Amino acid sequence: MSVNAGHSLTLTGPDRLVETAPEVLAAFAADRGPVLDYAEPLAVVWPTSVRGVQEVMRWASATGTAVVPRGAGTGVSGGAHATGGCIVLCLDRMNRILELNAQDEIAVVEPGVINADLNAAAAPHGLMYAPDPASYRISTIGGNVATNAGGLRCAKYGVTRDSVLALEVVLADGSLISTGHRTFKGVAGYDLTGLFTGSEGTLGIIVSITVRLRYLPVAVRTIAAFFPDFPTAAAGVLAVGAARVQPAIMELLDGATLDALDGTHGSNLRTRGNALLLIQTDGFGADAEAGVVRRVLAGLGGTVSTEGSAEAGRLVELRRHSRGDATAHEFRVGEDVAVPRSALVRYVAELERMAERHRVRLRVVAHAGDGNLHPTFWVQAADDGARKRLDAALDESITVALSLGGTITGEHGIGQFKLRWLPQEQRAEVLELQRRVKAVFDPGGILNPGKAIPGGGPANPAGPR
Amino acid sequence: MSVNAGHSLTLTGPDRLVETAPEVLAAFAADRGPVLDYAEPLAVVWPTSVRGVQEVMRWASATGTAVVPRGAGTGVSGGAHATGGCIVLCLDRMNRILELNAQDEIAVVEPGVINADLNAAAAPHGLMYAPDPASYRISTIGGNVATNAGGLRCAKYGVTRDSVLALEVVLADGSLISTGHRTFKGVAGYDLTGLFTGSEGTLGIIVSITVRLRYLPVAVRTIAAFFPDFPTAAAGVLAVGAARVQPAIMELLDGATLDALDGTHGSNLRTRGNALLLIQTDGFGADAEAGVVRRVLAGLGGTVSTEGSAEAGRLVELRRHSRGDATAHEFRVGEDVAVPRSALVRYVAELERMAERHRVRLRVVAHAGDGNLHPTFWVQAADDGARKRLDAALDESITVALSLGGTITGEHGIGQFKLRWLPQEQRAEVLELQRRVKAVFDPGGILNPGKAIPGGGPANPAGPR
Repeated sequence: MSVNAGHSLTLTGPDRLVETAPEVLAAFAADRGPVLDYAEPLAVVWPTSVRGVQEVMRWASATGTAVVPRGAGTGVSGGAHATGGCIVLCLDRMNRILELNAQDEIAVVEPGVINADLNAAAAPHGLMYAPDPASYRISTIGGNVATNAGGLRCAKYGVTRDSVLALEVVLADGSLISTGHRTFKGVAGYDLTGLFTGSEGTLGIIVSITVRLRYLPVAVRTIAAFFPDFPTAAAGVLAVGAARVQPAIMELLDGATLDALDGTHGSNLRTRGNALLLIQTDGFGADAEAGVVRRVLAGLGGTVSTEGSAEAGRLVELRRHSRGDATAHEFRVGEDVAVPRSALVRYVAELERMAERHRVRLRVVAHAGDGNLHPTFWVQAADDGARKRLDAALDESITVALSLGGTITGEHGIGQFKLRWLPQEQRAEVLELQRRVKAVFDPGGILNPGKAIPGGGPANPAGPR
Repeated sequence: MSVNAGHSLTLTGPDRLVETAPEVLAAFAADRGPVLDYAEPLAVVWPTSVRGVQEVMRWASATGTAVVPRGAGTGVSGGAHATGGCIVLCLDRMNRILELNAQDEIAVVEPGVINADLNAAAAPHGLMYAPDPASYRISTIGGNVATNAGGLRCAKYGVTRDSVLALEVVLADGSLISTGHRTFKGVAGYDLTGLFTGSEGTLGIIVSITVRLRYLPVAVRTIAAFFPDFPTAAAGVLAVGAARVQPAIMELLDGATLDALDGTHGSNLRTRGNALLLIQTDGFGADAEAGVVRRVLAGLGGTVSTEGSAEAGRLVELRRHSRGDATAHEFRVGEDVAVPRSALVRYVAELERMAERHRVRLRVVAHAGDGNLHPTFWVQAADDGARKRLDAALDESITVALSLGGTITGEHGIGQFKLRWLPQEQRAEVLELQRRVKAVFDPGGILNPGKAIPGGGPANPAGPR
């Protein structure tokens, strides 16, 4: 193939796969994030080896071609959206677990390994890979690292960064470097592993990941508590904290989310309360912790599931999938702000006021243990007026989250979609430092331009289209 | 005062304190690390405000004066050693806890706050600051962040990086930036907070730190187990892991360390075994976990302390201070390598062979939960021959740790002392990338030159003097 004047990319051997068929280009034009500026790639490339990735990057460097790395394409911020004149570099066929060392409690994986597959491989050893984004059954570890993905278990087990020990990375010029260490601790040099984690493919192509595994808990207990209103449920979050219990999972669902689940699954959750708090404790203290949690939540007036309730566990599974239940005629945008825990109640009250003022619908789920909220705004029809109202609500939700000491993205990343809000959170000097850090790794600006940090790519339009 | 031609540094208001008295310069010439190249600073400066730090950095930038930031000076890698023509910037008078928010479970501190003081302030709220370097009673949070300090509780609670949420940093040119977020999670932009953490004062002067606090455990159980030999004690570490118990503390002490403790404290530890494993479990599952640990260790032939033993707790306190028991006529160097857990036994056997071959003495303590070892090599007389043998043993201990998949520093940092080994762990391209990252933040190379990464400072001599 030849996608740029002068040079042609001809992958050799097993890395041969380069696709330019129109249906392939269309299929890989976007991830699951809102599309601001639709563009199709010049080609989609599937290397199956580090060498193949190096070959692609050398070609891209020589031709000045932008490269958009992509795992499973499950991101929701547009970090893997194609940009004009780019190639999409798919890493999902580099999907081998290279090593799983139960004594050292580590695994070394290629970037395309599916999160759930690593967990399946670790489980017989009594181990797990802790970071569990809602997409864990379909998303890749490489994508998880690129976005520093969170998940449900973060409050106790940390985010992706906290499980990544070492990386191998192909830089823009095709050179291969190693960062980090196989040991749990290590402070030699700067934390380049942390710098690459969450950099959304803008600094290098991650081709190998060494992760720390954790112990599969000996016991898991799940508590479901329905509350008459959201503020009381949110007070439950703080009360559990005040009882010094650190749950593995602490999810908060508002009434509209219960409605949506009822609509999809034929359940009757909403008849039982206007907010639901789902808490999982795990480990040797799971029973004792669950006992404290039940007592605390009942004391606040919650309707608390009985010990060993099977329904509570099922509700957690429902919750894991509660963002994928839109109907075809809705237009909706999910948000990912985080606020300090004590601001949860106030922030959700503000969201409700915004929804009313801008005449958009709202539902909210939150990883309440770490103050990370996923409000979803939606409108029934996608006419221009409705989209403008939606946009206005989104903008306001960001401004208010920041005013409460929050951040615009707890775990989904900036990608392309949230770039317009980043300057509200980070001052110009800090953005400029990041641009200069990127230039160290990618002087030609070919790695995922226009993502993660402003500059180095196409201009960022004002809102979703 | 005027320390460089052209400009004079005259701190105004409460930040007035600049000292040039010879005894002050001598007292601040070195931290507790081995001195390779003794130098005294031109002056020692104690700002008490962010503004004061900015004033110092603007002056230093204008005059091209090197700045060595310093907390309590308790580092053991020479990260705060003065270098030729530098000033030492002491941050220990910026020691206010600016905020402690129990609901949000965070604290905001100035860099000079003593680790133990933050813990004392957090305890009434049922909270703790988890990172606990052995120096926690005397070291500053700023110094802990600068080195990404570890400690005893890391295996369960993580290192300093895992508790740092946000920073305020004065850059080389005197400008002030913010990184990170007050929330537990946040992925906006690159992880500059992680980049500054562990950068040993070479990228900026940290003037404010927002940390996540953790719950004070409702229960703590301590188990002491004496073993007939080191390999069996180390096997105990893996057996506890295989039983899927995650202790808060898991310390391994060899026979020579027990001898040293006996000599200092008049105890009889060595008569009870040739290796000691100290394990602390905590939280709601502490009793259950301690029961499993006791059973596992007894099964391996350990002499295990009884439930509720007061001695076990005292031994943990002794261990916290087991590196400071040198006699005056010894010359010793403590190491800080980390190896994968499964390599602990083999590595210690190698250390013993090295000690014999180079005719130096050896004792070993390890944060065994994360494979971080502190072998101490020592010789009785500090003549040239003895020092050369000590150096040779040190060099070999590093080479072997790396060959086993380890790192040259688990938690103390590179500082000045370990620079000579860094190129064995990290390839030239990776070192060059780090130099270029440093240049982004400190283009003039005035921030702690010759520390943390090679280049940008005085040449590094071959060994300790």
